Amino acid sequence: MESQKCRMRLFGKNKIRNLYLSSRNLYIINNRGRYPAGVKRKIRKHRKRTSLWFTYGLQGSGLEAINMAEEITYTITFQPGEIVCDGVPHGSNLLRVALLEGVHINASCGGTGACGKCRVEITEGEYEGGKSAKLSDEDYNAGLRLACRIKIMGDMTVTIPEESRMGDAVALTHARRPGPGRVLTAQDLENLVSGWKVDPVVKKFVLKLDPPDAANNINDLDRLKLGLKSQHDIENVSVDFHVVKDLPIMMRLEDWLVTVTLVERQKGPKVIQVVPGDRSAEDYSIVLDIGTTSIYAQLLDLKEGQTVAEASEYNGQISYGEDVITRIVHSQKSGGRKKLQEAVVETISAVIEKVLEKGGVDRCQVSHMVAAGNTTMTHLLTGVNPKHIRIAPYVPAATFLPPVRAGHLGIDVCDHVHLYTFPCVSSYVGGDIVSGIVGSGVFQTEKVTLYIDIGTNGEAVVGNSEWLVATSCSAGPAFEGGGIEHGMRATRGAIEAVQIDPATGEPHILTIGGKKALGICGSGIIDTVAELLEAGIIGQNGKFKEAKQGDWLRRNADGLWEYVLVRAEYTATGQDIVITEPDIDNLMRAKGAIFAGITTLLNSVGMDLDAVEQVYVAGGFGKYLQVDRAAAIGLFPELDPERFTFVGNGSLLGARLVSFSKDMLQAAEDVARTMTNIELSDNQFFMDEYMAALFFPHTNMKWFPRMEEILAKLT
Amino acid sequence: MESQKCRMRLFGKNKIRNLYLSSRNLYIINNRGRYPAGVKRKIRKHRKRTSLWFTYGLQGSGLEAINMAEEITYTITFQPGEIVCDGVPHGSNLLRVALLEGVHINASCGGTGACGKCRVEITEGEYEGGKSAKLSDEDYNAGLRLACRIKIMGDMTVTIPEESRMGDAVALTHARRPGPGRVLTAQDLENLVSGWKVDPVVKKFVLKLDPPDAANNINDLDRLKLGLKSQHDIENVSVDFHVVKDLPIMMRLEDWLVTVTLVERQKGPKVIQVVPGDRSAEDYSIVLDIGTTSIYAQLLDLKEGQTVAEASEYNGQISYGEDVITRIVHSQKSGGRKKLQEAVVETISAVIEKVLEKGGVDRCQVSHMVAAGNTTMTHLLTGVNPKHIRIAPYVPAATFLPPVRAGHLGIDVCDHVHLYTFPCVSSYVGGDIVSGIVGSGVFQTEKVTLYIDIGTNGEAVVGNSEWLVATSCSAGPAFEGGGIEHGMRATRGAIEAVQIDPATGEPHILTIGGKKALGICGSGIIDTVAELLEAGIIGQNGKFKEAKQGDWLRRNADGLWEYVLVRAEYTATGQDIVITEPDIDNLMRAKGAIFAGITTLLNSVGMDLDAVEQVYVAGGFGKYLQVDRAAAIGLFPELDPERFTFVGNGSLLGARLVSFSKDMLQAAEDVARTMTNIELSDNQFFMDEYMAALFFPHTNMKWFPRMEEILAKLT
Repeated sequence: MESQKCRMRLFGKNKIRNLYLSSRNLYIINNRGRYPAGVKRKIRKHRKRTSLWFTYGLQGSGLEAINMAEEITYTITFQPGEIVCDGVPHGSNLLRVALLEGVHINASCGGTGACGKCRVEITEGEYEGGKSAKLSDEDYNAGLRLACRIKIMGDMTVTIPEESRMGDAVALTHARRPGPGRVLTAQDLENLVSGWKVDPVVKKFVLKLDPPDAANNINDLDRLKLGLKSQHDIENVSVDFHVVKDLPIMMRLEDWLVTVTLVERQKGPKVIQVVPGDRSAEDYSIVLDIGTTSIYAQLLDLKEGQTVAEASEYNGQISYGEDVITRIVHSQKSGGRKKLQEAVVETISAVIEKVLEKGGVDRCQVSHMVAAGNTTMTHLLTGVNPKHIRIAPYVPAATFLPPVRAGHLGIDVCDHVHLYTFPCVSSYVGGDIVSGIVGSGVFQTEKVTLYIDIGTNGEAVVGNSEWLVATSCSAGPAFEGGGIEHGMRATRGAIEAVQIDPATGEPHILTIGGKKALGICGSGIIDTVAELLEAGIIGQNGKFKEAKQGDWLRRNADGLWEYVLVRAEYTATGQDIVITEPDIDNLMRAKGAIFAGITTLLNSVGMDLDAVEQVYVAGGFGKYLQVDRAAAIGLFPELDPERFTFVGNGSLLGARLVSFSKDMLQAAEDVARTMTNIELSDNQFFMDEYMAALFFPHTNMKWFPRMEEILAKLT
Repeated sequence: MESQKCRMRLFGKNKIRNLYLSSRNLYIINNRGRYPAGVKRKIRKHRKRTSLWFTYGLQGSGLEAINMAEEITYTITFQPGEIVCDGVPHGSNLLRVALLEGVHINASCGGTGACGKCRVEITEGEYEGGKSAKLSDEDYNAGLRLACRIKIMGDMTVTIPEESRMGDAVALTHARRPGPGRVLTAQDLENLVSGWKVDPVVKKFVLKLDPPDAANNINDLDRLKLGLKSQHDIENVSVDFHVVKDLPIMMRLEDWLVTVTLVERQKGPKVIQVVPGDRSAEDYSIVLDIGTTSIYAQLLDLKEGQTVAEASEYNGQISYGEDVITRIVHSQKSGGRKKLQEAVVETISAVIEKVLEKGGVDRCQVSHMVAAGNTTMTHLLTGVNPKHIRIAPYVPAATFLPPVRAGHLGIDVCDHVHLYTFPCVSSYVGGDIVSGIVGSGVFQTEKVTLYIDIGTNGEAVVGNSEWLVATSCSAGPAFEGGGIEHGMRATRGAIEAVQIDPATGEPHILTIGGKKALGICGSGIIDTVAELLEAGIIGQNGKFKEAKQGDWLRRNADGLWEYVLVRAEYTATGQDIVITEPDIDNLMRAKGAIFAGITTLLNSVGMDLDAVEQVYVAGGFGKYLQVDRAAAIGLFPELDPERFTFVGNGSLLGARLVSFSKDMLQAAEDVARTMTNIELSDNQFFMDEYMAALFFPHTNMKWFPRMEEILAKLT
C-alpha cells in the first residue's frame, strides 16, 4: 500500500478518537494520538468539528504500529505448572486472564485491589501497574505485585506464590477445565458469512444533467429519471412524494449536479432523496439491535463497508417492565402503546446521537436504518399492537412489517430515511434470531448447527442452509440476573467469574471493570452454581449440603441456606452478596427450559444432540461464559469446546450485513420465511424433557460424562 | 322494475334531500318529499342523521313521477313568428328562455321585475308567477304577465306585444341567429365516454377469515393476505404501514369478518385500510376540479357508480392573486408556498364538508380522492415548488406526481385516503385539460376534435384517439371578468346575456338568478361586444363609432367612450354598469390569443380549421355562451353550431371517470404521456396569427362569412 489519504477527526480537547482509512478503520488506544512522520497537515473546519487531513506513506509512518496495537496478543506463562496462555490481548488484566483461563489466584474483592490476596511474582515480561495500598513496600521490592492491578503489555512469566494459590496445585486446577470455546474477533465475525459484497439496499448515485432549454423543457422529475436511465441504467423508479416538493431547487443549486438516494424495494427502486452536488462519499447507515434490556447501535460507512462507531443504552422501556409480557400488558393500558414506543425511540435517538458523535458523522449523511429485535420489541418500536403475542394461540400482528420512515416513528434522522425492521418468524422467534442466523452464517453452512441466543429470554435454532427450526424456550431472565436475589445485568461491578476452592469452599471472584461488587450477572451465577456443584457444596437437586456449613455456607435469619460470594467489606452495597436456594432453583428452571428446548427442537426433526456439528452462542454474556461451566450445570451438553463459537450480539451482526448488502437482506427474508417455528407451550415432549432437565446437570447423564465422573468422585 | 329497496335520507327539519336507488339517483325538487303509497317504513338512527328505509313498487308508487320531473322538458311557442323552442326544462324562466333562444323581449333590469318592460301574453299553457308591482291589475286581468317572473310548468304559447319587442320583428331577430350549440344533460355527459365500467382503482373486499388456533397461528397480516388470495384471488399485495398498527383489533372486533380497502397501483395492489365487519356497501370517493378561481367537488358512490352530491367554493388562494403567475410569485416569498397550500386545502375541506352534508355520507366512508387542476394548482395543492413554471423555459417540478395521502396535505379525510392528482403535460397544459380530454371522450373519438377550455386562462387541444397536441393561449382572465371595468365572475347578479336593439342601441339584459345587476360576466361581455359590432356601434377595430352617440353611448368624465348596459336605478351597485373601449380591447386580445392558439395548434400538425370535425367547449361559462356570439367576435370560427358541444366542467368530468374506473385512470396517464405540448411563447407563427386576430372578428374573414355579410350591410 502506498501513500494514501487519511482523515483524522479531532474532538473537543483535540483527542484523537479514530483514524479513517479508505480501506479500514484505525483505532488509537487511550485517545493519545501520535502523528506519523512526514505528515502533510491540512486543517479545515467542518461544522463544529475539525478534520485533519494528511497524506502518509503507510510503511514506516508509525501508523502501522498504532493500527496493529489492537490486534497484538501475548503469551502468558503461569508457574508453577507451566500453564501457557496464548492470544492474550494487549492491555488485558492479569487476574482476569488467569481466572478466565482457569488459573486460580485468590481474589475475594473482585479485583478491586481491596483484599490484597492476589499477589503474584512477575518473573519476566512487560506490564504496567501492580501496586496497591494492600501491598507493602517490602513485598513490592521483593517483586510481588497484585495481579488485579496489572495490565499486560508483553509476553510474561508469572509465578503464583503458595499463599495466593488454592489448596490444589495450579496445574491440577487448570487441567480439569476444558477450553473456553471460540470467542471471535471483529475480523472473524465479519468472515462468518461469505459470498457477499458491499451493495446496500440504499445507494447514492451522482447525476450530471443537461439544463433545460426551449427545445428540451421536460419537467424536472422526468429529467432526473432520464438521467438515472442514461447514466446509471436504472429504470422504472418510483419516487417518494417528498422528493418532488423541492426538486426544482435541489436540481439547480449546484448547476444540475445532484446526488440521488435510491432504495431498492421488492417492487423496484424508489428515489427517496435528491440533494445538490456530489454527496456520494457521505453515505452511512445505522443498524440497531433492539433488545428487551439493551439497545445496541452501529454506525456503518456504506461506501467503505466499514463499521465506524458503536454504542449502547438500556432500553428506556425497562421502567415499564423487565420482560416482554409485562410490556405487552402495559401497552394495553390507555396510552400505553404510545408511551412504550416513545421510550424506545428516545433510547434509539440517544444511541444514534452517540454513534454520530463518536464517528464524527453528520445526521444528514445517514441514509438508512436497520433494526432487529424480538417480535414484541419490533411491534412496540413501530407502534403495532402486540396484544395477541401473549394470548394463545400467540399470534403477532405481522412478522414482515411494511417499510416505514424512521422519522414517522419519531426517530431523529432525516425525513427520507427508511427503517427496515427484520422480519420475525412467530410471536417468540423474532427478527433478532433471524438476524443472528444470517449474521452468523448458519443459513449458509452445510453443518447441522445449533444457534442459541440467551438474553432476556432464550431462543434456539437448529438447522443449516437447507432447513431451520426454531423455538423460544421461555427461560426467563435468570441469565440476565432476573429472579436472582443479588442478580444484576452484566455491567460494571457485576461478578462475572467465580471460582470456589473445593477444599475450603472459599470463593474467588472477578467483577466487571474491577469495581467493588454490586451483584452477580449471568456468567457469575453459572460459574457459582457449577463450582458449588463440583465442590460438592450443593447436590444435583440444587440443594445445599448441610455438612458443608461453615464460613461460606450459612443459614440466614429466616433459616434458609445461602452461600456468601463476597463479604460486605468488599461490596459496593455494604451488604454480603449471597446466592440462595431459590436463586439456584430459578437457574435450574431457566437452564432446564433451554436444554429441553434444544432437545425438543432436535426431536422435531428426528435428531438428537449427536447430530449437532457446531454450536453458536449469541447473547450479551457470550464472551464471559465458559463452555465447561455452562455444561456443568446442564445449560449446554458436554460437546467438544471447539464446536462452540461465541458470536456475541448476533442480532447486530445480521443487521450490519443486511445494511451492507441487499443480497443479505433477501437472505434474511428467505430465512424468516423458511424457518419453522416449534411451539413448546402445549408440547408434551418438551414438558417431559423439561422435567428431566430439572437436575444438575440432568437426570440423564448421557450428555455429561465429565460431570458424571466429577460427581462420582464426590460421593 | 319491481319492488326494490330505497334509502331516503332526512335532514335537520325532516327535509328530504334525495332518494337513493340502487340503480340511479332520485332528486326531489324543492325539498318537499311525497311519501309513495304503500311504503313500509323502518326508521333507524345513524349517527346524527336519520335514515328512512322503505320498500316500494316503482310502478305507480308516485316516486316515478318525482323522478321524471327533472328530466321533463316542454315546447314554448313564441308569437308572432311562430318561433318554436323545444326541450325547455321544467321550471325554466321564460325571459331567460327567450333571450337564450334568440327571441328578443325588452328587459332593462336584468330580469328582476324592476323595469316592467318584459310584458308578454300567455296564450296557452301551464306556468307559475308572472305578477309584479310593475304590472297593473288592469294589465294582469287583460292576460299580460312579466316574462322575467314566469316559471314554465308546461308547454306554452307566448305572444309578445309590440311594446315588448325590439324594433325588428321577432321572426327576423330569431332567424339571424344560428343554434346555440349542444348543451349536454348530465346523462349525455355520462355517455360521452364509452367502454368503461365501474371498477375503481380503490375497492373494498369483504373477507371472512378462520380464527387462529394452535395448528394455524400465522400472524394476522399473513392471514389477511391468504384470505385475499383464497377468497378474491388477489396476490402480491403490499400493505400500508398504518394498516398493521391496529390490525389485531380490527380483525377480531367482528369475529374475523373484515372489509379490506385496496388501491390498485402501478406496481400492484396495496392494502390501505382494514376495518371490522362488512362495510363494502359504504364506498365513496370525492373528485375535485381545482380551478384557479373555483373549486368544484363531486361525491361519488363507487359501489353504485353514481354522483351523490356536488358543491363548489371560490379557491381560497384568490386573496393571494387572481392568476397563476401572481400566486407563483407569492409562493416564493417566505412561507408563501405553505400559505397557498393551506388556503386551497381549506377550500377543499369546505367543499368536502358540503358534499358530505348534502349526500348524507360519513367522512369515514370516503376511500379515495381524485383532483384535476392546472399545473400550478397541482403544484400548490401538493406543496411542490412551482417556481420554474413561470421562468423560461417553463419547467414544472413534475407532471406525474407520486401518490400522496390526502391527510398528509391537511385535507380532512381519513388517514388512509390517497389523493390521486391528474398528470399534467407541461407548465401550462395541466391535469384539468388531460381530465377534460378523458372526460369528454376526445381520446376515444376518430373525429378530429378541437377541445377548448376557457377559464382563468385558455387552453386548446386538437386531436383524436390517435394523436393530441395542446397549447395554452395566455388569454388572460377577460372571460372571467378580469381586466374588464365592471367585469365579474359568473355568479348571482352578473349580466350573462345581452341583446342590443340595432335600431335604438338599447340593451336588453339578463342577470344570473334574476338579481339586480352587479357587473358583467364572460358570456355577457361576449354578447355585448358581438351585439355592439352587429349593431354597428363599434367598428371591427373595437372602437366606438362617434356617430352612434346617444342615450347608451357616451363619453365619460375623462372623455373616454363608454356604452351603458344598465342604468344605476336597476343595478345593485347604484352606479351605471358600462363597457369601455379598454374593456373591448382586453376582450379582443383575449379572444385573439385563443383563436391564434387554435390556428397555431392546427398548423403544427399541418391542418387548418377545415379539418376540425367537432368542437368541445369546456369552462364555467360554457352553458351560457352562444356559439354565434362567440363566433361574432372571432373567439371561435363560424362552424356549424351542431359541431359545437358544451361539456361544462370538463376537468370534473374526467376526474369523475377516473375515480370510477381504473381503466380510465390508465387512459388519463396515457393521454398525459402522448399529448404534445406546443409552446407559443417564442412561436413566430403564433405571433403573426395573434396580430391578425386583433380585429373583430378577424382580419382574415375567410372563417366568418356570416359576419362578413352582416358587417357588409352596415357599411
